[in-house]
Amino acid sequence: MDTNTINDPLSQQELEQLHAWWRACNYLAAGMIYLRDNPLLREPLKPEHIKARLLGHWGSSPGLSFVYTHLNRVINRYDLDAIFIAGPGHGAPGVLGPVYLEGTYSEIYPNKAEDEEGMQRFFRAFSFPGGIGSHCTPETPGSIHEGGELGYSLSHAFGAAFDNPDLLVTVMIGDGEAETGPLATAWHANKFLNPIRDGAVLPVLHLNGYKINNPTVLARIDHAELEALLKGYGWTPYFVEGDDPQQMHQKMAATLENCIREIRQIQAEARDNNRPQRPRWPMIVLRSPKGWTGPKEVDGHQVEGSWRAHQVPLPQARDDAKQRKQLETWLRSYKPEELFDEQGTLIPELRALAPRGIRRMSANPHANGGVLRRDLRLPSFRDYAVEIKRPGATLAGNTFPLGQMLRDILRANPHNFRVFGPDETSSNKLQAVYEASGKTWLAGTLPQDDDGGELSPDGRVMELLSEHTLEGWLEGYLLTGRHGFFSTYEAFVHVIDSMFNQHAKWLDIAEDIPWRAPIASLNLLITSTVWRQDHNGFTHQDPGFLDLVVNKSPSVTRIYLPPDVNCLLSVADHCLRSRNDVNVIVADKQQHLQYLDMDAAVRHCTKGLGIWDWASNDQGGEPDVVMAACGDIPTKEALAAVQLLREHFPLLKIRFINVVDLYTLSGESEHPHGLSDRDFDSLFTCNRPIIFNFHGYPWLIHRLTYRRTNHSNLHVRGYKEKGNINTPMDLAIENEIDRFSLTIDVINRVPGLLVSGAHVKEKMRDLQIDCRNYAYEYGIDKPEINDWRWSMD
Amino acid sequence: MDTNTINDPLSQQELEQLHAWWRACNYLAAGMIYLRDNPLLREPLKPEHIKARLLGHWGSSPGLSFVYTHLNRVINRYDLDAIFIAGPGHGAPGVLGPVYLEGTYSEIYPNKAEDEEGMQRFFRAFSFPGGIGSHCTPETPGSIHEGGELGYSLSHAFGAAFDNPDLLVTVMIGDGEAETGPLATAWHANKFLNPIRDGAVLPVLHLNGYKINNPTVLARIDHAELEALLKGYGWTPYFVEGDDPQQMHQKMAATLENCIREIRQIQAEARDNNRPQRPRWPMIVLRSPKGWTGPKEVDGHQVEGSWRAHQVPLPQARDDAKQRKQLETWLRSYKPEELFDEQGTLIPELRALAPRGIRRMSANPHANGGVLRRDLRLPSFRDYAVEIKRPGATLAGNTFPLGQMLRDILRANPHNFRVFGPDETSSNKLQAVYEASGKTWLAGTLPQDDDGGELSPDGRVMELLSEHTLEGWLEGYLLTGRHGFFSTYEAFVHVIDSMFNQHAKWLDIAEDIPWRAPIASLNLLITSTVWRQDHNGFTHQDPGFLDLVVNKSPSVTRIYLPPDVNCLLSVADHCLRSRNDVNVIVADKQQHLQYLDMDAAVRHCTKGLGIWDWASNDQGGEPDVVMAACGDIPTKEALAAVQLLREHFPLLKIRFINVVDLYTLSGESEHPHGLSDRDFDSLFTCNRPIIFNFHGYPWLIHRLTYRRTNHSNLHVRGYKEKGNINTPMDLAIENEIDRFSLTIDVINRVPGLLVSGAHVKEKMRDLQIDCRNYAYEYGIDKPEINDWRWSMD
Repeated sequence: MDTNTINDPLSQQELEQLHAWWRACNYLAAGMIYLRDNPLLREPLKPEHIKARLLGHWGSSPGLSFVYTHLNRVINRYDLDAIFIAGPGHGAPGVLGPVYLEGTYSEIYPNKAEDEEGMQRFFRAFSFPGGIGSHCTPETPGSIHEGGELGYSLSHAFGAAFDNPDLLVTVMIGDGEAETGPLATAWHANKFLNPIRDGAVLPVLHLNGYKINNPTVLARIDHAELEALLKGYGWTPYFVEGDDPQQMHQKMAATLENCIREIRQIQAEARDNNRPQRPRWPMIVLRSPKGWTGPKEVDGHQVEGSWRAHQVPLPQARDDAKQRKQLETWLRSYKPEELFDEQGTLIPELRALAPRGIRRMSANPHANGGVLRRDLRLPSFRDYAVEIKRPGATLAGNTFPLGQMLRDILRANPHNFRVFGPDETSSNKLQAVYEASGKTWLAGTLPQDDDGGELSPDGRVMELLSEHTLEGWLEGYLLTGRHGFFSTYEAFVHVIDSMFNQHAKWLDIAEDIPWRAPIASLNLLITSTVWRQDHNGFTHQDPGFLDLVVNKSPSVTRIYLPPDVNCLLSVADHCLRSRNDVNVIVADKQQHLQYLDMDAAVRHCTKGLGIWDWASNDQGGEPDVVMAACGDIPTKEALAAVQLLREHFPLLKIRFINVVDLYTLSGESEHPHGLSDRDFDSLFTCNRPIIFNFHGYPWLIHRLTYRRTNHSNLHVRGYKEKGNINTPMDLAIENEIDRFSLTIDVINRVPGLLVSGAHVKEKMRDLQIDCRNYAYEYGIDKPEINDWRWSMD
Repeated sequence: MDTNTINDPLSQQELEQLHAWWRACNYLAAGMIYLRDNPLLREPLKPEHIKARLLGHWGSSPGLSFVYTHLNRVINRYDLDAIFIAGPGHGAPGVLGPVYLEGTYSEIYPNKAEDEEGMQRFFRAFSFPGGIGSHCTPETPGSIHEGGELGYSLSHAFGAAFDNPDLLVTVMIGDGEAETGPLATAWHANKFLNPIRDGAVLPVLHLNGYKINNPTVLARIDHAELEALLKGYGWTPYFVEGDDPQQMHQKMAATLENCIREIRQIQAEARDNNRPQRPRWPMIVLRSPKGWTGPKEVDGHQVEGSWRAHQVPLPQARDDAKQRKQLETWLRSYKPEELFDEQGTLIPELRALAPRGIRRMSANPHANGGVLRRDLRLPSFRDYAVEIKRPGATLAGNTFPLGQMLRDILRANPHNFRVFGPDETSSNKLQAVYEASGKTWLAGTLPQDDDGGELSPDGRVMELLSEHTLEGWLEGYLLTGRHGFFSTYEAFVHVIDSMFNQHAKWLDIAEDIPWRAPIASLNLLITSTVWRQDHNGFTHQDPGFLDLVVNKSPSVTRIYLPPDVNCLLSVADHCLRSRNDVNVIVADKQQHLQYLDMDAAVRHCTKGLGIWDWASNDQGGEPDVVMAACGDIPTKEALAAVQLLREHFPLLKIRFINVVDLYTLSGESEHPHGLSDRDFDSLFTCNRPIIFNFHGYPWLIHRLTYRRTNHSNLHVRGYKEKGNINTPMDLAIENEIDRFSLTIDVINRVPGLLVSGAHVKEKMRDLQIDCRNYAYEYGIDKPEINDWRWSMD
């Protein structure tokens, strides 16, 4: 700290008031866990005042509200625009308490008013069916981070701070959460925060020493090691350690104030001199007892300052008189009668301590980002169209034009749109974005770095080899009202499976909360797909993310598999305009055949699926077989099969269907995009064989369609977990999504073809062997495979 | 370093020899990437000598082989038992080179002999269809870590070192991988390594500065910060930095030797004095140019020392004469004619540098752990049985007896079995294990820590709040021939989805490699399940891991949902005896009804599914309806529904089926456990309605059974992603897996019941409302719900 360091900044009166406010927080936290009646202890505590089932986490609650209380002080003192992220979100009582005391809770939920009756309702509803969650759920005013699954608080905090130069994001990180991988690497985000353009993140590492049943690692390494670690992460740590509330209030007030000053100084220096260097941002290590101010000992076991304080310290309080007595003593230790007036309202002297209006962290609009969200300024996606003279006749890289579109979106939205990718933006052929923006980077640089994408403190392309961190940044950015686009390798999107799950759950709940304004959708481009892992082999082959996505609420999940450039552009435009969804787009980055001109692509994507007339010959009648395809490579192979079939069986009536919007396959009642049975039947027929060539694991198509009339005739091909080092055709053959296998499938399934088609099947098998032999001899596919074009009239 | 520090340990001759060996490695690495012929450059390089498609990663290869080369030196000098883990596994050429030079490759794959023809085959097969993978795949001798997905090298290394006191595990960590979350927290594993009991892990953080297209964070923070970070993680880092090979050889030889001495000193001190304290283990930071010794510049772009060296530095070498010339110059710079004799065999003087026999890291049996694997000494699982007098009449915690069994397995196998869990072993009611073993812990302790599970350097229960690290430790432990058991919360097993994917892929490939001996299965207990998240709410409700598991190869995946204690014990015993599988067991930790005595449980689990006669009344005839259930809570609700139905419709013939082994549902040709269609039909009938109450997302059952005769009559209930704070019954009702919903389902589906059952449906709906009202009033389920017991005769 510099010479301006503040020490013992609190007057006695201020200290007492702060402490009283914190006592009120702790009283409420304990009340939430235990009480269903007698909320102000106006009478002695009886069994019937106590909930039948005691649920909740006391352990980290006092620490959370301690920091919250002190933040309120500096918000007032420095007129800060601040939000609060509770990493230990399961310590919700430590957040809900101050949120209620600030008045926000009652404003939003009037039946939890600031009086005795409201307080009773507030207590009773906590961790109660249909009531208030025991994490910082979307229903919690001021929350953008539930903390149900641990690991993402710090990356969420950075996401919130990006492009919010005046915002302070304080994030409490539990020492349990700090052991997770995602959190352990998220500390490095300070190399991606520009002190001019972005706001500040103030982490408070809360060493309360214990997880559920164990001490925590960071609480049990020596001071020098911990300090070295945090400095090594690039932070300047300040330590607030102890258990005496009086001393701790002074220490925390001083430290917090010093941190605010230091942050302001860093920002002023960078901004005044236009020098966006990486500072060593301050952070706080708060070492306080777990379950601080709670019961010291229960039934001979230490509770305060031990893992036993994690959840409910007095679990038998309803039935055991001794524990009930202990609970009463504990609750009365906060002196509720001094804190709340006759009506049960916080006394005016304490009410005055909270910030006002939207300065309250619980009412800060950044934490209800939808209200700040502005539509993106989008160029016309048609401007990036690839010209298509004839379907299936030309090759183009599918993702490259999307990169151009993203480039122009970056240009048109210089403050609320970012592009994310784990060191794969170029690899995924989106490199045109670099024409509009460098890659965000405030660590060291060398001259050769910029050759292929400039590194810059002002960059808006976020790259780090941590899908966790990127996803966390993006979520934080979206939740505070901005927009983004994330591209990643298909196989490794599984790294963030659980983050996707949690975000989808958040959105699902948030949609039903009237006061939460819709936020921009999370747009995820899955590329470098299973079918083009030419040398990466088996580990890079996994199209199973979609199987996970379909488990989540249909109201927030969307899946698109555009077959070509123009469809990809149309889909991307739609996704960038949408709200409250997770849009998963699957499109490979390599050169692929192009099929639809832009008008046709828009029509096709709008419907979500459709017959491709130019590839069908069933006009004016029922087809003998439906060939359906979903995904770029599967579409190409299916078309090549149609061509083979039509060459060999000119009388065979084939209907070709391409599916872009995967959810069209599911029932109308199961997903808002689901096709009606009538429409489905008219496309897929009620009784003709369907050969469906799918990008992913084949079972997903069955899962989506098992209720459809013609499901028993549906034969799906897809990735069957067979691969190693393969050429594209070799891999297709191994998994039987290739043109030859599909041709054989049709012969096997269309009545009457088996006999006449026997020699064709033989030929197909020979062609497969030829292809594989060639691949195994030369390491590449045969030219006639690579050069295949659709050439039917 | 202490005063015994070694400096410049290499004589000029030794240095030249080491350098020559490394040159041979680099020659082979480049040869693998480029050459299909003329492997020793006996003639000028022509286009036809170069592969048609150039694939592979050059960038990290020289650094990998540099360390490998130097490790060989110290292995010889100190007679070390060592294995090598290549974090940047995509730099396989840097590993395959030394493995070939050591002779191991040719011993295992005789057609890649140590002569010109063998070398040509070796080159040609690299990154080639059907050939050698470009990662350290299971086919790579000496590999236990493919490195296809980044993040797990360091945790794998620790897993290998546990209980292998004489083993040295050197792990190269790429600076790209170091950015991932799992790797960032894995450094803390040194708090779990006992210097007496366990071996040593020597991390080499390889700062080659770049990922695919970006610099790396750790290469671009200043020296002081990096040093602080690594010290903060608890290591003593030694830096080997530069690009001049001569100097770097001396530095690396000295540093490595010093590290070996330091490790030995640490071990000797701990072992001689029986003081298992946490030392600050040494580690190495190797800062060397990316693509070291490769082309400095190509077409005006810097390559060596830049991200452009990541993959193939001269991509046009086949067609572009200038690049071809440059390639030839580069290859000749290693002077192959000095390294290999007339036959193409490494000259004797260099051959002598590699260790012999199983001292070669590529031939070390620890890296083919199956050969070291000994069967577990297992107690009889019957000894832990819960006594069952009547089915469905008593409650017991399902996981507690399993904890007792694990306790005794720990006791009987003190050196090759460990239990893993993210701070949830007690929470998951497996706390009996602590009677046999403390929790591994070498960080600081406090007196109150041990109250509920002792912390101990000798502990064999591994707990850290990082599923990534635990899974990585367990995998490393299994891959080196030991056994383990991992329990985790159901919702958060998704954190390791991608690790599961990668391990399943490894096993799938490994099974087909004759020289890889089978290893112990990965046993994963999923508990704290979706149906009992009484206050954790929506974020803790996700039974979708199974949907991911079924995507992986049927030869390595197994899924069990035992309905009660005795089935769980039987299943667990089976899993602990199995090999090369991933066994996923789903069983909740709370009190549940018990159904089968041990004999019945064994019979039931052996079949995998079966009719429960005592719950059925269709004896001697076809049932009117099949009620099937899979999972503990679904089974209880289905039984309660059967009881309701039989009370209301005494003539209705109901067959009750319980499924333990989920894969019995799939076809015989799809999974080795799949039931034949004949058996399936005889159980599930060909035409009667089936109501299937499932633990997970309902679609999975359709996915497994869509080909079954009676699939169109199959009606599945399961978790539909609906929940928040609920009592168990409230949640069941919301997702319609409750007894009342199932009763209504039967009435709706059995012909003839609709009219007669109308009033029963009405009653069921009323009962649901009653249940929910009670839950919303008291926060708990009605006593008659909690106290329900099976009571039919």
